[in-house]
Amino acid sequence: MRDPVRTLAEALTEEAPLKLWSVLVTCLGDVGRSSREEVSGLVLSALVERIGLQPQAMRVALHRLKRDGWIESRRDGRVGYHALSPSALKQVQAVEDRVYGPAAGLDGWQMVGLPPDAQDALLLLPEGTAGVLLSRNLALVAGNPEGVPDDWLLAVPGDRVLPDWVRAAVVDAACEEDFAKLTATIRSVEALPEAPLDRFALRVLALHGWRRLALRSNPAAEAVLGEDRAEIACRAAVHELMARLGPIQTSWLRAA
Amino acid sequence: MRDPVRTLAEALTEEAPLKLWSVLVTCLGDVGRSSREEVSGLVLSALVERIGLQPQAMRVALHRLKRDGWIESRRDGRVGYHALSPSALKQVQAVEDRVYGPAAGLDGWQMVGLPPDAQDALLLLPEGTAGVLLSRNLALVAGNPEGVPDDWLLAVPGDRVLPDWVRAAVVDAACEEDFAKLTATIRSVEALPEAPLDRFALRVLALHGWRRLALRSNPAAEAVLGEDRAEIACRAAVHELMARLGPIQTSWLRAA
Repeated sequence: MRDPVRTLAEALTEEAPLKLWSVLVTCLGDVGRSSREEVSGLVLSALVERIGLQPQAMRVALHRLKRDGWIESRRDGRVGYHALSPSALKQVQAVEDRVYGPAAGLDGWQMVGLPPDAQDALLLLPEGTAGVLLSRNLALVAGNPEGVPDDWLLAVPGDRVLPDWVRAAVVDAACEEDFAKLTATIRSVEALPEAPLDRFALRVLALHGWRRLALRSNPAAEAVLGEDRAEIACRAAVHELMARLGPIQTSWLRAA
Repeated sequence: MRDPVRTLAEALTEEAPLKLWSVLVTCLGDVGRSSREEVSGLVLSALVERIGLQPQAMRVALHRLKRDGWIESRRDGRVGYHALSPSALKQVQAVEDRVYGPAAGLDGWQMVGLPPDAQDALLLLPEGTAGVLLSRNLALVAGNPEGVPDDWLLAVPGDRVLPDWVRAAVVDAACEEDFAKLTATIRSVEALPEAPLDRFALRVLALHGWRRLALRSNPAAEAVLGEDRAEIACRAAVHELMARLGPIQTSWLRAA
C-alpha cells in the first residue's frame, strides 16, 4: 500500500509546487480556529518535511508571515511557538462556511447587463452575492440581488439549456476539473495511518488542497451549475476524510 | 390659417430634405396597395410641386426607380404612367402591418447574452422577432423567442426599473423624440383642404413621415418601452388624419 501522505502531496503538486507559506497558513488557521493553540517550530518543521517540503525554508517563510502580520511568534528557550494573528484568524473565519461548512451554494442566479465603461463592476457586488463575468458588459450574478447596483439590468434565465460558450466559461470559473481531480485523489486514501504526524500531515494536505480550490472557485459559477457541480462531491469527500482523521489533537502539536 | 400641406412639408424637412425618390415610392406604394392604379406623370409632377419639391428632378428620379426595378412605366402619347413593380409592391405589403395596421407591438422581451465574436448576430433573428443591441454581447430581443439561435443566453427581466443607460439606448432606438414631434405636427392639422391635389399631398406627406419613421424605429426597443411609447400615439394621430382625408380617390389620380 502506498503512503497516503505522499500520494496526496504528489497529487497536489502535480501542476505547481506547494507554497510553504500558504501551507503554514492552512495549518495554523486550522489549529487556530479549533483550539487557539500555538504550534511549535519543531512540529511545523516535522510536518513540512513529512509533506515533502524543505524545512530549511521555514525560517524565511515564518519571518515573512510575521512581517506581513499573518502570524505571531514567541520563543521559549530554543523553541519557537507560532499562531495565526487575530487579524489573520478573522480572515480565516470569514471563509469558515465556504471551507468547513456543509454547503456554500448561493441561491438563484440572474443574467446581468453591465453599463458601458463599468470597469471592474463586479467589485460593487454586495456581500452574499457573487458574479462571473462572461464578457465586458455581461455577467451572471448569484445570491440575493437586493443590493445589486440600480444601473445593472437583471434578468432571470428561462429553462433553455445553457449555450456551450456560457457553460464552458462557467465550468472553467467553477473549477470543475480541479474539483473532480481532488475528489478522486481524496477518495484514493483508503487505510489511515496511525502516527500522529502522519494524520496531522494528511489533514493539513487535504484541507490545503480543498481550501485553495474552494477559495479560487467562483460561487456564482457554482450556482449556475447547480446541484451537479463537482464542488459538492469534493466538499463531501474532503469533509469525510477530515471526519475520519478526527479533529486536531493537542498531542499532534506537542510531538516531534 | 396656414396651409396644412406647407406646414407638414416644412416639419418633415426640418432635419433633412425630403428625398424625391422616396416620396414617389410612398405615393405609388399607397396607390398600388389600395387600387393598383397607375399614376400619370402629370399628377406626380403636380403633387411633387405642391409638396415643395422640384418637379424638374422627376425625370431623373423616375428613371432611376425604373432602372432599379422599383417602378414600371409606360407611355401613352405624351403622357407617362407609373406604378410600383410587383416586387416593390411585395416589399410594401411586407411592412403593411407596421405602416397601416392598428398596432405593431411585439409581445414580451428578453435580455440576450450573445456569444463572443458574434458579429452582426442580430441578423440571425427569426421573423416575428426584433432585437436592439446594447453593447457588443448584450441585446434585448422582443417577440417569440422560439427560433432564436441556441447559443444565445436568454433571460426575462424582473420588475426593477430600467437602468438609465438601458432606457436611453431604448428611447433612442425607438425614435421616441421623432414620434412625439411627428404626432404634434400631425395634430396641428385642423381644417382639411377641399382640393383633390391638396388632400392627396397631405395624405402622401403624412404617410411618408410616418412610414420612414415607423420603418426606422426598432420594434424591440418599442416593446421594451411598452404601452407608454410615443409610437402608439403617433400611429393613432396619423391613422386618424388619413381616415379624415379618406382613401385615395381615382379622381385624384386623373386630375392635373
